[in-house]
Amino acid sequence: MKKGRLEAFSDGVIAIIITIMVLEFKVPEHGSNLETLIPLAPFFLSYVVSFIYVGLYWNNHHHMFYIVDSISGGVLWANLFFLFWLSLMPFATEWMAYNHFAAGPVAVYGLVLMMCGLAYTLLANILASHCGKNSELAQALGRDWKGKASVVTYVIAIAVAFWMPVIS
Amino acid sequence: MKKGRLEAFSDGVIAIIITIMVLEFKVPEHGSNLETLIPLAPFFLSYVVSFIYVGLYWNNHHHMFYIVDSISGGVLWANLFFLFWLSLMPFATEWMAYNHFAAGPVAVYGLVLMMCGLAYTLLANILASHCGKNSELAQALGRDWKGKASVVTYVIAIAVAFWMPVIS
Amino acid sequence: MKKGRLEAFSDGVIAIIITIMVLEFKVPEHGSNLETLIPLAPFFLSYVVSFIYVGLYWNNHHHMFYIVDSISGGVLWANLFFLFWLSLMPFATEWMAYNHFAAGPVAVYGLVLMMCGLAYTLLANILASHCGKNSELAQALGRDWKGKASVVTYVIAIAVAFWMPVIS
Amino acid sequence: MKKGRLEAFSDGVIAIIITIMVLEFKVPEHGSNLETLIPLAPFFLSYVVSFIYVGLYWNNHHHMFYIVDSISGGVLWANLFFLFWLSLMPFATEWMAYNHFAAGPVAVYGLVLMMCGLAYTLLANILASHCGKNSELAQALGRDWKGKASVVTYVIAIAVAFWMPVIS
Repeated sequence: MKKGRLEAFSDGVIAIIITIMVLEFKVPEHGSNLETLIPLAPFFLSYVVSFIYVGLYWNNHHHMFYIVDSISGGVLWANLFFLFWLSLMPFATEWMAYNHFAAGPVAVYGLVLMMCGLAYTLLANILASHCGKNSELAQALGRDWKGKASVVTYVIAIAVAFWMPVIS
Repeated sequence: MKKGRLEAFSDGVIAIIITIMVLEFKVPEHGSNLETLIPLAPFFLSYVVSFIYVGLYWNNHHHMFYIVDSISGGVLWANLFFLFWLSLMPFATEWMAYNHFAAGPVAVYGLVLMMCGLAYTLLANILASHCGKNSELAQALGRDWKGKASVVTYVIAIAVAFWMPVIS
Repeated sequence: MKKGRLEAFSDGVIAIIITIMVLEFKVPEHGSNLETLIPLAPFFLSYVVSFIYVGLYWNNHHHMFYIVDSISGGVLWANLFFLFWLSLMPFATEWMAYNHFAAGPVAVYGLVLMMCGLAYTLLANILASHCGKNSELAQALGRDWKGKASVVTYVIAIAVAFWMPVIS
Repeated sequence: MKKGRLEAFSDGVIAIIITIMVLEFKVPEHGSNLETLIPLAPFFLSYVVSFIYVGLYWNNHHHMFYIVDSISGGVLWANLFFLFWLSLMPFATEWMAYNHFAAGPVAVYGLVLMMCGLAYTLLANILASHCGKNSELAQALGRDWKGKASVVTYVIAIAVAFWMPVIS
């Protein structure tokens, strides 16, 4: 199966995810001086972080599918599973910003990031097993410690967030 | 007529449909502990179900147009008719979740699914008749009991929903 | 200049326009029986009409660019001018539905449709003059009475809407 | 690296940015005569301006990538950086319109435009250095005074907006 439409559909979904996060910036209802923008600071900060994360995934997705020639039905589903978790980013981002980075929402944000990381790793492995052991992708994955390391990091981060006594 | 732009336009519309459903998750206005997410459970559950349905249709759409070489004007319109019903998924999903799977909204959800199924079957048949009796698609459709069976299932499910005495 | 990206960008914009109109359907806040959907009837009706119109323009756009080989800078801008007017469709549709097809909103809806028609005609003529008098497109345009007729129809419809004494 | 997916992703993001700005037009809640549209005039005006700006960037983006053959990892990130600033256009546009072009919001709008201009210039230079000194793009950039001039203009405009005594 050719990869063209999977790439086009993923591009569309990721483009929408990265763009609708900007709808979180609600225009301040009163006042037009610059101080009225201060309450938007956590939204801006979390938007920047999420934009980088989603951009990073798009970059990786782009590189990964660039070096394969064909896909399978399983890859289509693994890709949808990955896009599902990525689609929860706007909600997690907004909830975290709305609560000024309180522990609970940060933990949920970390959970969504972790699931994105797991789903992406799953997608990479299904794609690699479709391409065969000697494929460029399979060999690149064998050397990939970044993916595994980042999942571990997320787990620790979520645990830390829950340990923090801030949770009311 | 070539199929490239029909595929690109359909990818765009389906990508938007599958992504704007996530806008249903309204950030809880009060509290940042995890219990405030509990009221979102029906939204999450129905989002998962609808994501799978729309993903399934995208997969099928992808496979179907993959094995044809050209399209006709009638196929363009049948495709728009299918996309119209699919575009009602976000509303039906949200209404169902908002009312905690009450009978009326579930029946409407089932109706939308049924119309998607009928419109997709219509699209498949118009495409098959354009390609000719001996085409790969026409032969695949002849063996396809799943499509017909799922429409029947929807009809029964809607009927059951109406029979349930829950409707106030 | 090649036409690929103009087609891809137009597909994206038109896909978004046709899909965000569905956000007009606000989930009824009280009650889950089917009667609560009755106030949505004008929204559904106007959504159907606008979906057909936008779908029609996408079809025409698809056919027109299908028969040309190259584009110019002027075509890019004429295309953006057309997309601008098309992007006003969701607002005009919602305002018309919100006011139950009162004369003023219907006139505005007609005005938007007319401007889409004019902008599309302009786009077609700029594209035809880029391709040359003997091109397939230029000859097709010469035979095209539909486009001119529909613009005239819109003008009459708007005039009628204003003459109607319903305007409060 | 091929440029196809970068173009497709950018087309998607820019198409969404240019289209969600239309969601700023909130349907007037009371009355259906045409006077109720008057309060929307600043939104319409700023929408037109932003539509032209975003359309201009899409045109330039299209032309620039048209004359290059390949891209690099740095170009992907510079492109994301450009898209980030462009994605702030809908917020800046709406805030400016909401406050009837008060000095503060106009300055923020100018700031966003300036950052878009800077990010685009950065993208162009990274792309040109990837393509080499003798490439068509590098030579076109050498002659480009428009880009530098427009950044200077934005700086002056922002300064002027702050000097204006209108800021309350």
